[in-house]
Amino acid sequence: MLLCDIGNTSLHFYDDEKGEYKESVVAFDPSTFLEKVYYISVNAKLSKELKNLDNWIDLAPLIQRNKYYETMGIDRIFAVEATSHGVIVDAGSAVTVDVVRDGVYEGGFISPGKHAMQKCYSDISPALEYPFNFELNQKNLAKNSQDAISYGYLKLLASEICSYDLPIILTGGDAEEFAQLFFDARVNKRVLFEGMQKIIEQVLEI
Amino acid sequence: MLLCDIGNTSLHFYDDEKGEYKESVVAFDPSTFLEKVYYISVNAKLSKELKNLDNWIDLAPLIQRNKYYETMGIDRIFAVEATSHGVIVDAGSAVTVDVVRDGVYEGGFISPGKHAMQKCYSDISPALEYPFNFELNQKNLAKNSQDAISYGYLKLLASEICSYDLPIILTGGDAEEFAQLFFDARVNKRVLFEGMQKIIEQVLEI
Repeated sequence: MLLCDIGNTSLHFYDDEKGEYKESVVAFDPSTFLEKVYYISVNAKLSKELKNLDNWIDLAPLIQRNKYYETMGIDRIFAVEATSHGVIVDAGSAVTVDVVRDGVYEGGFISPGKHAMQKCYSDISPALEYPFNFELNQKNLAKNSQDAISYGYLKLLASEICSYDLPIILTGGDAEEFAQLFFDARVNKRVLFEGMQKIIEQVLEI
Repeated sequence: MLLCDIGNTSLHFYDDEKGEYKESVVAFDPSTFLEKVYYISVNAKLSKELKNLDNWIDLAPLIQRNKYYETMGIDRIFAVEATSHGVIVDAGSAVTVDVVRDGVYEGGFISPGKHAMQKCYSDISPALEYPFNFELNQKNLAKNSQDAISYGYLKLLASEICSYDLPIILTGGDAEEFAQLFFDARVNKRVLFEGMQKIIEQVLEI
């Protein structure tokens, strides 16, 4: 079975046999695919094109949207669908945090991603232009500028995530780096594809 | 007694009789002052000029610098000097948070200010371009985009500040707005001048 997560710049595929791979949106021609492809998309232009191809199956309409809020990203929803009890932290250009407890979605929040936050501090003052210290001692308040911004970003985020007392699942491009903030967290880069598989099994009964 | 906090764009004065007022750095001529002016400055160019004027007295050298870290802003240090037991939150272009417990400086951290953080979110995606909701219900995770970013910024900051279980003192241009986040917080826009007065009394014995 071929799954695809379509973004604005790249397509992220998952194949039972070949595993994961990415393709650029620029070079992509959907008509070259003859097999069925189950997809989710945040790319409006490509979505329109795919509607005319019978073997490209959009999974978004299979979701019970009333469990989520209207403007919630479809990628975030599928990562949540994969989880019955835990906090899903997707660390990319933004850090999205979503809480599922005993099968019920409780809500979430959004922090800026690592790169956006670093730019934010350095735009305020060149004196705050440091890389974040992911090995920060979270027990002590900061006594130097690098730790002061690292604490302001990472420690506050980690405290909030730990406060739910739930298993922590990290996904997204910066998952490994953020995993250093937690005593016990699982990195799972395929959580979104697991959500897609679950919906395909439950709703399409495949 | 005339006190002055010198920034890069403006000078903030405090006079026992006239109260507070501001002057632009551009229009400023220190030689027109005949009385003694006690000042702190982050403006390197003006500091150099003031060194030649006997009636302008820099308070920075009177501080025991080893209580603080090397790159800590002099304005932050004087706000801390005013406080023997509390959290000082200075909400301006950055939000600096400093903790003093029983007269001992424990350290602090730095979050981006309101405007910088709003720009940070909207630079990530136009879908995150919202003003922050300072009246956010901090007890529930967010279920809409505006609350999702407000929670990610304001709730995380408020939780950390409340966790010290100390009196909260808010200062800086956005103090009143941030005060809405706390059940019990005191806005004191003069805390830096109080620190200056305290040092003048203790060290200069005036």
